[in-house]
Amino acid sequence: MPQLVASGSYAGGMADSPSPRSAAPGPERLDLAASSVDITRQICDIDSVSGTEKRLADAIEASLADAAHLELIRHGNCVVARTRLGRAQRVVIAGHIDTVPVNANLPTRFETVEGHDYLWGRGTVDMKAGVAVQLKLAAELAEPRVDVTWMWYDNEEVSSELNGLGLLAADRPDLFEGDFAILGEPSNGQVEGGCNGTLRIELRTRGLRAHSARAWVGDNAIHKLGPVLDTLAAYVPREVEVEGLVYREGLNAVGISGGVAGNVIPDEAMVQINYRFAPSRSVAEATAHMHELFPGYEILVVDAAEGARPGLDAPIARNFVAAVGAEPRPKYGWTDVARFSALGIPAVNFGPGNPLKAHADDERVPLQQITDGERALRAWLSGH
Amino acid sequence: MPQLVASGSYAGGMADSPSPRSAAPGPERLDLAASSVDITRQICDIDSVSGTEKRLADAIEASLADAAHLELIRHGNCVVARTRLGRAQRVVIAGHIDTVPVNANLPTRFETVEGHDYLWGRGTVDMKAGVAVQLKLAAELAEPRVDVTWMWYDNEEVSSELNGLGLLAADRPDLFEGDFAILGEPSNGQVEGGCNGTLRIELRTRGLRAHSARAWVGDNAIHKLGPVLDTLAAYVPREVEVEGLVYREGLNAVGISGGVAGNVIPDEAMVQINYRFAPSRSVAEATAHMHELFPGYEILVVDAAEGARPGLDAPIARNFVAAVGAEPRPKYGWTDVARFSALGIPAVNFGPGNPLKAHADDERVPLQQITDGERALRAWLSGH
Repeated sequence: MPQLVASGSYAGGMADSPSPRSAAPGPERLDLAASSVDITRQICDIDSVSGTEKRLADAIEASLADAAHLELIRHGNCVVARTRLGRAQRVVIAGHIDTVPVNANLPTRFETVEGHDYLWGRGTVDMKAGVAVQLKLAAELAEPRVDVTWMWYDNEEVSSELNGLGLLAADRPDLFEGDFAILGEPSNGQVEGGCNGTLRIELRTRGLRAHSARAWVGDNAIHKLGPVLDTLAAYVPREVEVEGLVYREGLNAVGISGGVAGNVIPDEAMVQINYRFAPSRSVAEATAHMHELFPGYEILVVDAAEGARPGLDAPIARNFVAAVGAEPRPKYGWTDVARFSALGIPAVNFGPGNPLKAHADDERVPLQQITDGERALRAWLSGH
Repeated sequence: MPQLVASGSYAGGMADSPSPRSAAPGPERLDLAASSVDITRQICDIDSVSGTEKRLADAIEASLADAAHLELIRHGNCVVARTRLGRAQRVVIAGHIDTVPVNANLPTRFETVEGHDYLWGRGTVDMKAGVAVQLKLAAELAEPRVDVTWMWYDNEEVSSELNGLGLLAADRPDLFEGDFAILGEPSNGQVEGGCNGTLRIELRTRGLRAHSARAWVGDNAIHKLGPVLDTLAAYVPREVEVEGLVYREGLNAVGISGGVAGNVIPDEAMVQINYRFAPSRSVAEATAHMHELFPGYEILVVDAAEGARPGLDAPIARNFVAAVGAEPRPKYGWTDVARFSALGIPAVNFGPGNPLKAHADDERVPLQQITDGERALRAWLSGH
């Protein structure tokens, strides 16, 4: 790849040996003139499990290098491409290029199930079909009616501190100027606004160790978790309306542990609880709710992320929803729209594919949703 | 050690080299003419954590080799020594020679706490003081009023299939003829009869995995453990009189586990339960009690051992209890007396040391209990 050869020390500039650059093939390029279905297939077949996105990022960068209407910025394995047309408004349109691990579901293949055509394979839903639509429109729409900042980023499927969008926002906040953001996460071609927040706590009970043959000398920490599990089982999650969308909450034990040995009364036990809360509630309020539900228990917050309000009352958001002809829905899972929300940019999820098929071994996207998605986004960005 | 050199291939019998046997020191011997307190110290300072008992077993065998009144049998790292006087009754007196791992508590030392003298260190309580008393009496009592089969065995502190007494019983059942058995397990110098049985079960709940952002699609297996823990917390263990002794039962969670990942509704959870039951109940009855307490749950028995009835109604047992002047008590923990009980031999625990100090880092035995124990057992075996 050009940028590698130029900065490498092993070859370029050595006068007494032929330059490998002249012998090397050019950088891998995508065929962005193909259909968005075909582009989906091209980028799925370039395996890019989190941490191995470089090849795909290089191909994206190379494929857009000749697009005169785009300014290209490379940041790690993120590629940013933006128009600078001086439009009154700017929209950020983003998608992650990594996938969860492949499980014998690459290369992709077409299949027809009950009369519907699908592209099957890892990444087809989460979220390379969305990225494919974005790449095609980035290459082709030289004069959109709003300025567009396209962002393709790495490491979305792994821990938050590796997230390419987060690292980009930290280093280059200037790139995040915008009036509205669209994330191509699978939403069945509908518009899903905002997202629930998430909180993970460890709730611990304590006791006193003893030999289980003389249990009355000890104090069993595991037994003390009974009321906690009963509270969880009886809990009725709220359904909360935020800006017209109804968010469904969830409160669940996701792990439990305790025990020293088969003949020892345990002196400690722990249940890990995940609370998914509507975006009307902050992390601090969600944490307070845990203390209210489990008074007197030892509670440690191990993970937390604010939700995102749907932001659908912004005129540009309303205009987008109307243009793509979708009924907005709430997004239950946490997505990177929350990063935009935190920056004050209203953001929605809009992408092909059923989110319930994300990460599934039989991940597959309906071809119709890809072409419909391309048509809707093209129409809105073109203004006709 | 002689038996090693004789069977080794590296030296013995090679005519052209000096025999290492003539140069080697004789086998290590214990000084059994010393006091039982001193013998306790000698055998504690020969570290014999389970699996490493050979050196001590060799020393015991060598120390009794010259006792003309004893027939010696070596079986692995068990040493059996028995009189063959043709007495009307035979008593088996046994003790294990292994210890739990040393934790900076060897070599032994004497200490005086609140006016009482102790020998401190690993094995002093569990159960080398008892073995020391046995070794001294085995060496000195050439004409006991009952025939005696002394047994010192290995691997009591580890899993049951390694237990030296169990392996000996399987290979040499003929050695287990007897009218009564005394195990030198620590019992504060009192007679503890029989022992509780023990049962360990794994109780499982099942559910359906789902992403925790859409918990309503799944079915949380951990939540289903709440009623199980409530039952355990509310359970009032029985106190059961068996042959005049009151056995206290115990029912406890000793382990709990479940969970797939921080964002997944778990499809399986497990609690491990230990039931210690009075010897009036069989393993089969104890298992049935678990199904009765937890109806409809998936239950797997992972470990079980029958208890042992105290056997104190046998005349020889009554005579022993009266002779040593003890008030018989129930033994709560499982001990090898259950092996004798299973063979139809009434058996009791009788040894110096507080069982609550067994396995403790500050394990220590009162010197008085060692000398009192020696005196009582000597008097009963001598008949005066």
